Amino acid sequence: MSTQINRQVILTSRPTDIPQAEHFDIIETAVPAITEGQVLVRNLYLSVEPAMRGWVSAVANYSEPVALGGVMRSLTVGKVLESRHPDYQCGDIVTGMFGWQDYAAIAGNTVQRKVEDNGLPISTALGVLGINGVTAYFGLLDIAQPKPGDTVVVSTAAGAVGSCVGQLAKLHGCRTVGITGGTEKVRLCQEEFQYDAAIDYRHDNLDEALAKACPNGVDVYFDNTCGPISDAVMKQINVGARITLCGTASITNWDPIPLGPRVQRQLLVNRARMQGFLVFDYAERYGEAIAALTPWIRDNNISYREDILDGIDKAPDAIASLYRGDNLGKRLIRIANEAA
Amino acid sequence: MSTQINRQVILTSRPTDIPQAEHFDIIETAVPAITEGQVLVRNLYLSVEPAMRGWVSAVANYSEPVALGGVMRSLTVGKVLESRHPDYQCGDIVTGMFGWQDYAAIAGNTVQRKVEDNGLPISTALGVLGINGVTAYFGLLDIAQPKPGDTVVVSTAAGAVGSCVGQLAKLHGCRTVGITGGTEKVRLCQEEFQYDAAIDYRHDNLDEALAKACPNGVDVYFDNTCGPISDAVMKQINVGARITLCGTASITNWDPIPLGPRVQRQLLVNRARMQGFLVFDYAERYGEAIAALTPWIRDNNISYREDILDGIDKAPDAIASLYRGDNLGKRLIRIANEAA
Repeated sequence: MSTQINRQVILTSRPTDIPQAEHFDIIETAVPAITEGQVLVRNLYLSVEPAMRGWVSAVANYSEPVALGGVMRSLTVGKVLESRHPDYQCGDIVTGMFGWQDYAAIAGNTVQRKVEDNGLPISTALGVLGINGVTAYFGLLDIAQPKPGDTVVVSTAAGAVGSCVGQLAKLHGCRTVGITGGTEKVRLCQEEFQYDAAIDYRHDNLDEALAKACPNGVDVYFDNTCGPISDAVMKQINVGARITLCGTASITNWDPIPLGPRVQRQLLVNRARMQGFLVFDYAERYGEAIAALTPWIRDNNISYREDILDGIDKAPDAIASLYRGDNLGKRLIRIANEAA
Repeated sequence: MSTQINRQVILTSRPTDIPQAEHFDIIETAVPAITEGQVLVRNLYLSVEPAMRGWVSAVANYSEPVALGGVMRSLTVGKVLESRHPDYQCGDIVTGMFGWQDYAAIAGNTVQRKVEDNGLPISTALGVLGINGVTAYFGLLDIAQPKPGDTVVVSTAAGAVGSCVGQLAKLHGCRTVGITGGTEKVRLCQEEFQYDAAIDYRHDNLDEALAKACPNGVDVYFDNTCGPISDAVMKQINVGARITLCGTASITNWDPIPLGPRVQRQLLVNRARMQGFLVFDYAERYGEAIAALTPWIRDNNISYREDILDGIDKAPDAIASLYRGDNLGKRLIRIANEAA
């Protein structure tokens, strides 16, 4: 192993807005040696998440910001090359916060999960059978608690989380309305993700399109954007509506807090609930979500899309690319083959 | 009865903002005759609520607006003078939506409740043992679910609802912080309503005063105001905070919806919940709240204040007076003696 090189994507400056390629650098270091209790993981796929904008921000957030000079924090899926931990063996496929790098020496007890062979590509362990599917599952079912017949509106409806939310809601007997940007994503929402209606926020008049798509109002809103899209949805919520706050993609800077129409009156007169949600709080229950999602995915009741870039050199621009809306489906970076 | 006159306060024009005396008129009509199933009630006390601003507004709300030319909607407590309903007898004290008028002929099944003699003044049936106490009870215990040790912040802390919320939270083992306006109300909060700290929003620097009063952050916020007071509280909420939206007193006009700092990010990173609440949804459970509150009030574990005006001619200005902050305690209008 000692002749191998470990390429690492490190954060070199702190963005005030969306992180760009210039905020990162790729360095070459030695492959780390492992100590007792650790495993050496060869990363195969790196994940790219909208939430990464928050992870590198110095503004108060739900986790410590990635250190300047530190490896970019990321979920990855990789193969165990060496193990000094009793639960893992050479060849196991594992996921965890192993960072944007080729190799990671990590404590066995920080592995998120061992990926069993389920007939689906291992890349799904980072998307529809990973953080995105689990986010959709708990954010919809636990926080918003949809009932059959409810109208469920989803923002970033064609995204890795949104597309799963829409299909889960459909499987639970709801009318599903997706809001997305661009003709191609509208088509995906309708043809692949089974939304009953899809709205192009870049093209359609949102108020009118929502009224038409939600003739009985909005019972559940799964919010990945905040901003003007959410302002429009809030106008049409029903009595007893539940709003899951999962992301705020359309707001690029929270310092100072931007102004928007106050939500309190709409929540009050409709006895509605708006609730923030972080999937990491459900870490103990990930297995439950994955067990429920796996057969739905295998039987094509839930479709997913992956948008895979090749090579670690694609990582520095990958977050910015996500916010440009370049991707169609879960954005991943493949840095080695499974046979590696 | 036919020689008696029924004075009625009617809505003559629709305010765009806070209803003033000029929006009402007092007319004299005949005392109504009752039909089968009805009772004739002689109102003794009329209630005055902040929510009345919404009841007369044409802007979408939780109830139909009071009709122009119609008697002002109001909870009252009164005495049954005649009954053609089997559940009520002459002399019973009852509460219900009997309006700002001397006499009301109402269907027996629309009586809210019969007030049993509990050793407390019957006026309490409109305040701490009526809508205000019940609002405090369910809005705090059911919606916000305080735990011992939580810091509970209350706006309009010396008001009819707020003062009860603070004392209920205290009885449940919480640290209580009241926000109110003016030295006299601060004194009331501290000396009579047992708040651990009281903040004068008109005088104190809110951010600093809140930080000092809530060294461990805010776990529960019982919001009666919205506006800048709530904006300040939102900055200091804890992970898992619960916000009960009970009123929006500081916003005089919701058309168009005023702008404020967006709450979504604070709710998201703190996995916090903001929930609208209307006490009328708990109508089936009022008895439960009243049964719980009565001994606390009788044993002086919960203090209350009433601010009683005499004469129905005080009614037209009474809502505006409430918003001017003239009252110290629950504002009622006495229009007849119990012996009437």
